[in-house]
Amino acid sequence: MITIQFPDGAKKHYTKGSTGMEVAKSIAEGLAREAYGVLVNGMPKDLSVPITTDATLKIVTAKDKEGIEILRHTSTHIMAQAVRHLFPYAKPTIGPVVEEGFYYDFDHEPFSPEDLVKIEAEMEKIVKANYPVERKEISKKEAKELFKDNPYKLELIDEFEEGTVSIYRQGDFTDLCRGPHLPSTGKAKAIKLMKVAGAYWRADSKNKQLQRIYGISFSEKKQLQEYLHVLEEAKKRDHRVLGKQLDLVMFHEFAPGAPFFLKNGAIIYNELIAFIRKEYQKRGYEEVITPQLYNKKLWEQSGHWEHYKENMFVITVEGEEHSLKPMNCPSHCLIYNRSTKSYRDLPVRIADFCCLHRNELSGTLSGLTRVRKFSQDDAHIFCRMDQVEEEVLGVLDFIKYIWVEVFGFKVNYSLSTRPQKALGDKALWDRAEGMLAEALKKAALPYQIKEGDGAFYGPKIDIDLEDALGRKWQCPTCQLDFNLPKRFECMYEGDDSKKHQAVMIHRAVLGSLERFMGLMIEHFSGKFPLWLSPVQVIIMTVADRHEEYATKVKDELVGAGFRVDTDFRSESIPKKVREAQLAHIPLMITVGDKETEQNVLAVRTLDGQVKFGMQLSELKGKMQMLVEKRAVKVEI
Amino acid sequence: MITIQFPDGAKKHYTKGSTGMEVAKSIAEGLAREAYGVLVNGMPKDLSVPITTDATLKIVTAKDKEGIEILRHTSTHIMAQAVRHLFPYAKPTIGPVVEEGFYYDFDHEPFSPEDLVKIEAEMEKIVKANYPVERKEISKKEAKELFKDNPYKLELIDEFEEGTVSIYRQGDFTDLCRGPHLPSTGKAKAIKLMKVAGAYWRADSKNKQLQRIYGISFSEKKQLQEYLHVLEEAKKRDHRVLGKQLDLVMFHEFAPGAPFFLKNGAIIYNELIAFIRKEYQKRGYEEVITPQLYNKKLWEQSGHWEHYKENMFVITVEGEEHSLKPMNCPSHCLIYNRSTKSYRDLPVRIADFCCLHRNELSGTLSGLTRVRKFSQDDAHIFCRMDQVEEEVLGVLDFIKYIWVEVFGFKVNYSLSTRPQKALGDKALWDRAEGMLAEALKKAALPYQIKEGDGAFYGPKIDIDLEDALGRKWQCPTCQLDFNLPKRFECMYEGDDSKKHQAVMIHRAVLGSLERFMGLMIEHFSGKFPLWLSPVQVIIMTVADRHEEYATKVKDELVGAGFRVDTDFRSESIPKKVREAQLAHIPLMITVGDKETEQNVLAVRTLDGQVKFGMQLSELKGKMQMLVEKRAVKVEI
Repeated sequence: MITIQFPDGAKKHYTKGSTGMEVAKSIAEGLAREAYGVLVNGMPKDLSVPITTDATLKIVTAKDKEGIEILRHTSTHIMAQAVRHLFPYAKPTIGPVVEEGFYYDFDHEPFSPEDLVKIEAEMEKIVKANYPVERKEISKKEAKELFKDNPYKLELIDEFEEGTVSIYRQGDFTDLCRGPHLPSTGKAKAIKLMKVAGAYWRADSKNKQLQRIYGISFSEKKQLQEYLHVLEEAKKRDHRVLGKQLDLVMFHEFAPGAPFFLKNGAIIYNELIAFIRKEYQKRGYEEVITPQLYNKKLWEQSGHWEHYKENMFVITVEGEEHSLKPMNCPSHCLIYNRSTKSYRDLPVRIADFCCLHRNELSGTLSGLTRVRKFSQDDAHIFCRMDQVEEEVLGVLDFIKYIWVEVFGFKVNYSLSTRPQKALGDKALWDRAEGMLAEALKKAALPYQIKEGDGAFYGPKIDIDLEDALGRKWQCPTCQLDFNLPKRFECMYEGDDSKKHQAVMIHRAVLGSLERFMGLMIEHFSGKFPLWLSPVQVIIMTVADRHEEYATKVKDELVGAGFRVDTDFRSESIPKKVREAQLAHIPLMITVGDKETEQNVLAVRTLDGQVKFGMQLSELKGKMQMLVEKRAVKVEI
Repeated sequence: MITIQFPDGAKKHYTKGSTGMEVAKSIAEGLAREAYGVLVNGMPKDLSVPITTDATLKIVTAKDKEGIEILRHTSTHIMAQAVRHLFPYAKPTIGPVVEEGFYYDFDHEPFSPEDLVKIEAEMEKIVKANYPVERKEISKKEAKELFKDNPYKLELIDEFEEGTVSIYRQGDFTDLCRGPHLPSTGKAKAIKLMKVAGAYWRADSKNKQLQRIYGISFSEKKQLQEYLHVLEEAKKRDHRVLGKQLDLVMFHEFAPGAPFFLKNGAIIYNELIAFIRKEYQKRGYEEVITPQLYNKKLWEQSGHWEHYKENMFVITVEGEEHSLKPMNCPSHCLIYNRSTKSYRDLPVRIADFCCLHRNELSGTLSGLTRVRKFSQDDAHIFCRMDQVEEEVLGVLDFIKYIWVEVFGFKVNYSLSTRPQKALGDKALWDRAEGMLAEALKKAALPYQIKEGDGAFYGPKIDIDLEDALGRKWQCPTCQLDFNLPKRFECMYEGDDSKKHQAVMIHRAVLGSLERFMGLMIEHFSGKFPLWLSPVQVIIMTVADRHEEYATKVKDELVGAGFRVDTDFRSESIPKKVREAQLAHIPLMITVGDKETEQNVLAVRTLDGQVKFGMQLSELKGKMQMLVEKRAVKVEI
């Protein structure tokens, strides 16, 4: 008999050599039906593998990360089996599970989109046939005989250090594989092939080019449909596409990784800064404008020269090395140190929108999300240790206000604690972590603890966001730092008349404004809240005779501070409306005979609300209210 | 007889050998009394020099630039004479007229400030003695005999190419000199010695160090007093001093030439940008935000790589040279070219506050006026040739509005025309110059013409400003460019369906914001208009019991969008007022028993107006009006 311990701590005895499937059945038939594999002592295994010693065991289903990996692994075999059915001369090479699904590389002529459709149909047949998937250990010699027609597999077999290799068989298809796999092909109920691309054997361009087919699979058709929908949505919302279409942003080969914000994009960018700036005024921050190019002496003092140099753009000026700043913190230390501080002067909250440069590899650059030049709504709070909790509370309030209340994102918090290599003694860390935890509690924010995940220089609060498509992002930061104030000797005189070292809190709310722009364009699908819309309202005339009245309306709205466009062309109203909708203008005013005579407006919103006979004063009031509240939805 | 022609064109006959003094007397005794020298055929000469041929002649007085030079030249001799009286072993070397007055270098022990006072007193005696100043031509040999004790003069004599040299004698002092000079020392009525400094003979540190005494002189004591007053004022207003005192700006050795705008400086900087941005909205500009680092390919296309490379900061990125942009124009050409344009799309006015870097030598850097990093309120107008006049008119209106109406500077205009080496044919230039002239005329702005002073790529309008101290500045620009649109092929489709090249207008209103900040700090002596003041109003309590009411007042003013400070300390009102005055806060509210009971305010301005029993609503209204009007003076 062996003893099996389950994730809930319960223990049960089984005959030695029982399989995962048998254990699952002993718990519940339903569980056995849903099982994809098992974790034995934390290692993923086939359900059919006999368990011969005492072990911890977890039945893995589609709900587990490991379950999805098993499903997708089997999906690659199903794909390879289908390809072999249709293209007998295609040689399968390797087929791993990757972040976005799975792929398999074949030595074959390029596949056409039509081929993919045929392969998918063939895969469905294999799933329907519900072949059992069988594992077998064989000697390397046997394996070499089995795969004698496939030089890629032979190369792989030669590289195995063990004397035996494992193979998996399903129907007429056998593959060299470590596993584990689903018990049978019928469980792979929702597979979709995504695309085909060229790829070199072992990613080496000196080798032969293979054909890589990408696929995705889920346990249910519904999940696949949802996934494809999000993909479709993300494609439509792609900020690079919308950025061009709405004249928000452009890129140019002469400035890789550095966006050009155009007419409409710059309006939004500047509105965001103006908004955060207003909050700074309310929340007691002092904004500064700082240099970008610093002598390497600054970076030597901060430690960046030693640890971060390859990410900085270095320039030699009059024989001395300088660098464009990749972050603001060291320059804020210089500013803090411009005068001596007493304990009564703290906290000092220094904010800075100045732009930063990081030398990312050109190959990794992508739209607004991976850039070389960006700005942050960055601030550094210099405070006493006894002020940390209150300051962090203030930062958490700021972040929640902007992300949840203004922009309507879902937010998750976690607290990252002392890592193995940490600066400062444990007592200091314990106190600081306690203050962060207390701040999270006082703010009534549920949070997870990430043990040992803090930076070497201090604990931090991680903030995860979820956008309208359910995608995860990390933008804001709130991070304690005992290191920089030490390196720069940022001190204050305490009420004991002695010098003490200040604590520094790094914090950003929107984070990189460039990344935020990209994220927000996609989150709102280019349909921005009224306060951010580059053009807030457009006035369209039915005929030339309405131009005078329309101009009066325009002047009054411009005078009230709104961004107004007009369309007085001799085109039909439906055409003008269609174009305004394509430009994502939130409010459209139509002016015809009735409106001119009665001194009213016909107003429609981008999402189709229409209101006739509206007074201009009423519309102005509504718009003012929507802008002041920074409302996401436009209601008239 | 000889014929003398005067500046007004009149001609008169004189005996051959008549002197300038005789000619002056023949015109008017008064003129002869005021005469400092003459211009004979444009060359400055002594009044005593006989005129032996037909010539043009101008009597030079203190009103002429050449007159002031003659006066100061004689002033150096008076100084040297006085030094010799007091320090017989001092050896005079050279004593030229320079931009800010004159100096004389002596081989002698360092002079003390007390020495300067003594020398000045001795100079007054020399002036009073009214020695005639006599010129004499002597042979080099005679000269060497005369100056045999002075190796410096001997070295100079040896270098003369002519066989004879001229000497000037006044009383007991003779100097080697080309002249010309005043007829007698009595005419130098207002001389002041400024400072003494070390200087090497012939500016070569291998030579002996001499003592350089600096001085200034005017024709009248009153002018000297005014000059000294301006100097004193400028010193008090120095933006580097006020910048530190008012927490506006700091500099750090780690970032030479790049200012840090602090709490108060950044508020002003951002208010300026917000103001210009509002004007952009009214005046049809589209603002963009652009990269800073560009591949050298951009600069090769623009021509900067060839002509401006040494002024650019160059960085190698992934093996290719890039540079920080020193100006915005080329990037705006890329933006213009992002889409094809029709003649109806023009003008396109692209504005940009992004920061620029120019690699100035560290030795030339100074405060905010000579920097390496700066931003401009820079814009480029792409238009059709037939739109130039209207666009320039718009630019002139913009400049006049900001500089004259808002900031109260005096402005002078000039039109710089086609230089010798010019791009584009003469007809194009003529048309463009005509349009600029026409715009100046339509704007009713008097202007001078600077023949041939345009840039090679187009004519321009120069705008000179005069600040509160009467100092001259050049900040705004308005410049046509036929070159860049050609290099970047910035085209539009005309109504003839053919491609045409756009014309570009470079224009800036404030110019460099950094330089403008420096200029404005000095112009206003740190006492900024209300709309720009970092703290607009401070509320001071007489005693603790007034804090509640004071806080209510504060909240209401903050709510109305004002920048408010409070001083609730247990200090006397006179002390609080004094500190607020030192911080240059334009409005001070005092709150005591009477104010709290009657729900009113005691308000005083920085220039000493006081108003008791003021209603908060009245003050708010006044402040709003002052901010909206951007009033320079605060009246309550």
